[in-house]
Amino acid sequence: MELNRLEKQIEFIKEIDKLKYIERKTKLFNSDRRENDAEHSWHLSIMAIILEEHSNENIDILKVLKMLLIHDIVEIDAGDTFLFDTTKNHVNTIEEFVAAKRVFGILPKNQAENLIVIWKEFEEGKTNEAKFAKAMDRFQPVLQNQSNNGGSWFEFNINFENIIKKTKTIKLGSNTIWLYVEKTIKALYNE
Amino acid sequence: MELNRLEKQIEFIKEIDKLKYIERKTKLFNSDRRENDAEHSWHLSIMAIILEEHSNENIDILKVLKMLLIHDIVEIDAGDTFLFDTTKNHVNTIEEFVAAKRVFGILPKNQAENLIVIWKEFEEGKTNEAKFAKAMDRFQPVLQNQSNNGGSWFEFNINFENIIKKTKTIKLGSNTIWLYVEKTIKALYNE
Ligand SMILES: [Ca+2]
Repeated sequence: MELNRLEKQIEFIKEIDKLKYIERKTKLFNSDRRENDAEHSWHLSIMAIILEEHSNENIDILKVLKMLLIHDIVEIDAGDTFLFDTTKNHVNTIEEFVAAKRVFGILPKNQAENLIVIWKEFEEGKTNEAKFAKAMDRFQPVLQNQSNNGGSWFEFNINFENIIKKTKTIKLGSNTIWLYVEKTIKALYNE
Repeated sequence: MELNRLEKQIEFIKEIDKLKYIERKTKLFNSDRRENDAEHSWHLSIMAIILEEHSNENIDILKVLKMLLIHDIVEIDAGDTFLFDTTKNHVNTIEEFVAAKRVFGILPKNQAENLIVIWKEFEEGKTNEAKFAKAMDRFQPVLQNQSNNGGSWFEFNINFENIIKKTKTIKLGSNTIWLYVEKTIKALYNE
């Protein structure tokens, strides 16, 4: 019984290795190398630990970490969607939900259900934990693009209003970080 | 005051990006591509969440996650040491301590001190959390090398006794996982 659970868990551990091959549009700091989803998830998790004090509300940091560590796992099947892709809906697509069922479904039932609930909570972005986790997810590319002279925003010709609209999600999680982000984007776009 | 802290935190976030360039000896699952420290730290963190039930003792999983997310950060300055490197001492080298002081020292003082304490606790491996975190760190390469027909162990001619000696640390964190690991290594080495 015990070993049966362990074997399922090991299958899951092997499956999520694939996240290391999923490339994002954004590049590493001062770099021309695109980031992959595993590196990205690690970076956001440390950011959450370091930046917790700037959260607008008290948060359960353990839940935030779980969200950030698993938030991109569905991309093993569904692929990365660029934040500024206008051809795709970004919230809880059916494709992503099917992916969540398949990938988390490799785990023992109680763990699969638990992680799907956490993933959905992140996607919906309504709780304090989800708001802060999403703030991390939007903040990291700002820093990367700042270090790369506009990075993926300039590369894909995203305009100022669009950037502000999409990154403003950060304000829901942290006013302090949002002030920094707004200033950074204005400087990049000479606004 | 607030912004001054944020600026230091951002400097740290940029600095640790370098972990994505530190290559390990072990390769990804069924792959010829070596893993980097950021991917590795992400993978271990999810493993800890999934495998917590197999810990010999009750553990504070949040502390385990902090340990795993930051445990390799010193390698930005000190580089990765192969577990079977016989020319280096593996526990708390002066080089790693100097690196911890420099890299964590970028953060506001209270955060730097806090993370150095957590990093040392991991390195010393004496608490239940450190034992379980170290079990994750030793277990992942076992799975990777299993999927790569011996992987880095065969590549660098590490013998059976040596593997058993080094991986047995896993038993301190989880008897259940150790049973699986011992069986796996015996099968690989036809012992
Ligand atoms: Ca290491």
